[in-house]
Amino acid sequence: DSKLRIFALNSNKPLAEKIADAVGVPLGKSSVTRFSDGEIQINIDESIRGCDIYLIQSTSAPVNDNLMELLIMIDALRRASAKTINAVIPYYGYARQDRKTRAREPITARLVADMLQRAGADRIVALDLHAAQIQGFFDIPVDHLVGSPLLADYFLANHLEEGAVVVSPDHGGVSRARRLAEFLKAPIAIIDKRRPRANVAEVMNIIGNVKGKRAIIIDDMIDTAGTITLAAQALVDAGATEVYACCTHPVLSGPAIQRITDSAIKRLVVTDSINLPEEKVIDKMIQVSVGPLIGDAIRRIHENEAVSPLFVNRFV
Amino acid sequence: DSKLRIFALNSNKPLAEKIADAVGVPLGKSSVTRFSDGEIQINIDESIRGCDIYLIQSTSAPVNDNLMELLIMIDALRRASAKTINAVIPYYGYARQDRKTRAREPITARLVADMLQRAGADRIVALDLHAAQIQGFFDIPVDHLVGSPLLADYFLANHLEEGAVVVSPDHGGVSRARRLAEFLKAPIAIIDKRRPRANVAEVMNIIGNVKGKRAIIIDDMIDTAGTITLAAQALVDAGATEVYACCTHPVLSGPAIQRITDSAIKRLVVTDSINLPEEKVIDKMIQVSVGPLIGDAIRRIHENEAVSPLFVNRFV
Ligand SMILES: Nc1ncnc2c1ncn2[C@@H]1O[C@H](COP(=O)(O)O)[C@@H](O)[C@H]1O
Ligand SMILES: Nc1ncnc2c1ncn2[C@@H]1O[C@H](COP(=O)(O)O)[C@@H](O)[C@H]1O
Repeated sequence: DSKLRIFALNSNKPLAEKIADAVGVPLGKSSVTRFSDGEIQINIDESIRGCDIYLIQSTSAPVNDNLMELLIMIDALRRASAKTINAVIPYYGYARQDRKTRAREPITARLVADMLQRAGADRIVALDLHAAQIQGFFDIPVDHLVGSPLLADYFLANHLEEGAVVVSPDHGGVSRARRLAEFLKAPIAIIDKRRPRANVAEVMNIIGNVKGKRAIIIDDMIDTAGTITLAAQALVDAGATEVYACCTHPVLSGPAIQRITDSAIKRLVVTDSINLPEEKVIDKMIQVSVGPLIGDAIRRIHENEAVSPLFVNRFV
Repeated sequence: DSKLRIFALNSNKPLAEKIADAVGVPLGKSSVTRFSDGEIQINIDESIRGCDIYLIQSTSAPVNDNLMELLIMIDALRRASAKTINAVIPYYGYARQDRKTRAREPITARLVADMLQRAGADRIVALDLHAAQIQGFFDIPVDHLVGSPLLADYFLANHLEEGAVVVSPDHGGVSRARRLAEFLKAPIAIIDKRRPRANVAEVMNIIGNVKGKRAIIIDDMIDTAGTITLAAQALVDAGATEVYACCTHPVLSGPAIQRITDSAIKRLVVTDSINLPEEKVIDKMIQVSVGPLIGDAIRRIHENEAVSPLFVNRFV
């Protein structure tokens, strides 16, 4: 059997450590630094000939730098005779650019898929891709992990499932809400944003019953937090007793932290798919780690075992 | 005949304007901005269906951002039914990572070539690639322009060729020095850096006669300016009356500006292949534009004319 090696790039070293711990191997020796002009310099400080490499990198901000680190490292590993290169991408950047919504738009999520394959990736391990269709952008196997069981665990462990309703902040997220609701044995509700006329503020209609209930909003990512904080207020206005929010990917750009701080959201539960700088870790936020989940998936993939269906949607 | 369109990305708009002027067409309407989380957003604001597109972008610092802009724009143009996409890359970043000098190094210059082709480029127009071998990294045509005639023009126009010796700062640059020397009808000299023993400072030996002469050092790029400023001092020590330096690509990172300011270099002649921020444009620097050169090449490529051999090394 060939050797399993885990390497971390720069975007999320704390998570990479947790993954390596879960698998029970030390992180491979490598460094990614910059030349004076900003070009990426990679050093792999141990032989990896014939090894199965799992390379951990989230393509979160700075997305272009993190993506290029990943591509260049894949190139270096391939030229250094790695047996297989498995790109583990807990957060897949550019995922929202997955289709043309206007004329002459790029489909950058597909471009990134092509780049990863051209560089030499043999497999992708991803977590809650913004759209499951992104798996179809690849010719290589994609293991698509799901974070909602971990988020569910938080609510169950804190006995928050009683009297709860799981809320999808838009139409696109209903199946995600349904999955969390199954874990919590709770009903669901959907927020139906509509603009009554052009140039008039959107109205947040709530489909389903939230009155007197604890609302738990779930989304795949929270970026500027506009949608989710407005949704939280609409839920309070509709009689929800308290509002929790959760997501897999805490993008949290621009005004997000201020908006969440000022919002009706009592607690925000996120994963560590994206490494957060200290100033983004606020009191009302809880981070649960996807390290054990990803570590378990890596071990199973390496041993050609079935990946636990509770945690993993394989090739779905 | 299909329509010629020139588009500029963000790295070097002033040069793109000069190229468009030289060709006699306006720049295409497009914008490259950022989403809140830093992901690149591209808008192409006019139809380009069936057009021959020339896309101007130097992959200078910030190299990863500029490269991703280029790749995403190529993707958008291809999906918008451009007839041909010609990537005009006055400065090709990552060019020094063109071979493995140590174990387990990437060959990023090749990776970038693959990415450009995978994204959909049909042709590359480049200027003074760090190594001509990089042309071989592509399967598509590469037009390789040469900047030294423009640099020669500066010295000729200022009557600096009399009593001059053209100096290559290392062994790798001798043919480049020879080409400039031919334009100036001047002899050449070579700086022969050697480390007499390990952990001892390098000695700069000069091969050729520089005593009583005006030395003109030429290189393809000046990055941290360590080599060139040490070479300038060695030339003065060897009896050169004055020292000029020139290069195509003013990378000028880290301590470069300070070193050049403090150095024996009287005047530094560079091109505008890289757009320089104001603080890098110092008194002893002269910038000559490659706009007319690149514009002429674009016009000739579009009309299937031979490209002037004085200015262009085609497929060399
Ligand atoms: N990084 C980004 N930040 C905000 N919006 C984006 C980003 N990338 C793509 N989009 C836009 O988000 C929309 C798709 O999002 P969705 O409907 O949630 O899949 C498209 O209109 C995209 O132009
Ligand atoms: N951006 C960069 N800045 C400084 N050195 C680099 C850069 N990229 C590559 N190199 C190194 O430069 C050397 C090749 O330069 P050269 O011998 O001039 O072709 C190799 O040792 C590379 O590792």
